[in-house]
Amino acid sequence: MKTIHLDLGERGYPIFIGENLLDRRDLVAPCIRGHQVLVVSNETVAPLYLDPVLQAFDGYQCGTLVLPDGEQYKTLKTLNTIFDTLLELHFDRKCTLVALGGGVVGDITGFAAACYQRGVDFIQIPTTLLAQVDSSVGGKTGVNHPLGKNMIGAFHQPRCVIADIKVLDTLDDRQFSAGLAEVIKYGLIQDAEFFCWLEENMERLLARDTDALIHTVHRSCQDKADVVRADEKESGIRAILNMGHTFGHAIETGVGYGRWLHGEAVATGMLMAADLSHRLGWLSEKDIARIDNLIDKACLPTRAPADLQSDQFLELMAVDKKVSGGQIYLVLPRAIGESVVCADYDPAMLKQTLEAHLAVGSGVN
Amino acid sequence: MKTIHLDLGERGYPIFIGENLLDRRDLVAPCIRGHQVLVVSNETVAPLYLDPVLQAFDGYQCGTLVLPDGEQYKTLKTLNTIFDTLLELHFDRKCTLVALGGGVVGDITGFAAACYQRGVDFIQIPTTLLAQVDSSVGGKTGVNHPLGKNMIGAFHQPRCVIADIKVLDTLDDRQFSAGLAEVIKYGLIQDAEFFCWLEENMERLLARDTDALIHTVHRSCQDKADVVRADEKESGIRAILNMGHTFGHAIETGVGYGRWLHGEAVATGMLMAADLSHRLGWLSEKDIARIDNLIDKACLPTRAPADLQSDQFLELMAVDKKVSGGQIYLVLPRAIGESVVCADYDPAMLKQTLEAHLAVGSGVN
Repeated sequence: MKTIHLDLGERGYPIFIGENLLDRRDLVAPCIRGHQVLVVSNETVAPLYLDPVLQAFDGYQCGTLVLPDGEQYKTLKTLNTIFDTLLELHFDRKCTLVALGGGVVGDITGFAAACYQRGVDFIQIPTTLLAQVDSSVGGKTGVNHPLGKNMIGAFHQPRCVIADIKVLDTLDDRQFSAGLAEVIKYGLIQDAEFFCWLEENMERLLARDTDALIHTVHRSCQDKADVVRADEKESGIRAILNMGHTFGHAIETGVGYGRWLHGEAVATGMLMAADLSHRLGWLSEKDIARIDNLIDKACLPTRAPADLQSDQFLELMAVDKKVSGGQIYLVLPRAIGESVVCADYDPAMLKQTLEAHLAVGSGVN
Repeated sequence: MKTIHLDLGERGYPIFIGENLLDRRDLVAPCIRGHQVLVVSNETVAPLYLDPVLQAFDGYQCGTLVLPDGEQYKTLKTLNTIFDTLLELHFDRKCTLVALGGGVVGDITGFAAACYQRGVDFIQIPTTLLAQVDSSVGGKTGVNHPLGKNMIGAFHQPRCVIADIKVLDTLDDRQFSAGLAEVIKYGLIQDAEFFCWLEENMERLLARDTDALIHTVHRSCQDKADVVRADEKESGIRAILNMGHTFGHAIETGVGYGRWLHGEAVATGMLMAADLSHRLGWLSEKDIARIDNLIDKACLPTRAPADLQSDQFLELMAVDKKVSGGQIYLVLPRAIGESVVCADYDPAMLKQTLEAHLAVGSGVN
């Protein structure tokens, strides 16, 4: 087992990465202050992994709540079912929530923990690659609103993260690849060495080789932890983690939630960011080809959806949070392994990027 | 105008107390980072004070939202109407929310600010005495849940508080008295000198004498600021601000939200706390009489509702947040001007207190 400590002073916490960690009482016990625990999962994950997790919490007053599975349930309404359960169980301010599932379960459970009695503890047990390498680390929690993704939420750090890579065995290939998009992102934004490693080891990763997975989750969490440590609440540098996300959110919203997975949209979004970067004279054609190849190797879409127009796309991008004073801030690669947050690009070039990508379409049907 | 600075490091802010402050652009401008402002008020307050407040925000992209008036609207559903408005207006992360109203508007608007895009700025312009002396200061925000008051919320400090005592002229007598309950509370828990001042000046206060009001709001905010500075997130000493509240919440819930005002319930709750304190040998009969007299002078109920039984009352108290490990923590006066958070009292004495008060009934009909 590898451990990363995300140092955020009194809000700091360990990230445990390894095999067969779900029932490890010794990992969770130091994180629990009271005696009440609510494990929140979803209908896909619970039948597979709820039992070993409940073993880890044996001896506590332990409730469970199984949510429906899917991004469309990441709403205030579902959030309220968690509050209902906590209040029906008379859980107090020292209770602990446990998120057992992917990004949706983690985000909504974390947000419930942020708001219940103005803040209680929570533990992340991510069961998708995307959640292990990204959403479970760093304290971003929240729900969607019909008018925008993740528009309602809080920064609320977990007390620990338990990334058991054995649970990835049951993840379907499409979800696994979606997680690889965020992995590739770390290489592209700040870790050229890791990018090279991924180019050389993508086959091992797709075969779910244990050592390759542990290295990947560890390195990704380390990369993310470095950024979060420097800028917990995203007033500056943390924004680089959004590489590909502004384009990606526009894709997800434009085609309707659920048709594209988040990671798929981010993958194509990174290629759009790379394209704009190339037009700005930063990335070479060879760099673009390397990024395109790696995304393709990871079985991720390299083409935007065909059924979106560039004007509509721009409007969707502008709804995204990463807008300030009417300008769309974008994270763009300066090179492979280096990135900048940038708003002073030529809008005509962004338009060219959109038209080039939207004309070609279509990545996911 | 008097100014108190609540020193919480980067989350610190000024509290302005005086006359005719609503249209003072110079007070609000330094608190606004972006150019978008949403003023949230209610249907009672907006017709009276929205116009001058909008003058203060002249030059910004300024939206307004008028909520229905009443504690029964302090819900997740109403909260979502604020998010709807913010998203329809395409407000970004640098926008500022302004709460113009009493405690309900302040709590719900502050919570919306805490959650919108994981946290935006907000300004409190409290228009009731209770909100000016208590709820607008200290960053407690939130909404109610059918199973408990203020169970969902966040600590989110405003960027400034503007307490214009002229707006209290339009407050009805019952609401005004409800605010006095929290004022008396500061005297009882930590400020014996202020308690004496209130005993001598209650008539001037009830006549809404300007100097008496400014002194009262200033002294109350100062008392509260001292406590919040020492313990922003209520991990310890801040709990003393809840004197009378655990009893009070049980009254409010027991008779049904809205029949008793919060301040009325707190007033009677303080007398119940004082009664238990007397049984524990701390307060003298003379102290009890002074507290009873002052609450009575402030036109607040000194008797609990008649239609509650002590078992039911105990159960309602146990749902309150101030419970840990099954024990009901209570804030009890050790003397007038001194209080303790206490869980090691004899439960039989609490029962005696409840029976003594519930048998006598009935404070508000």
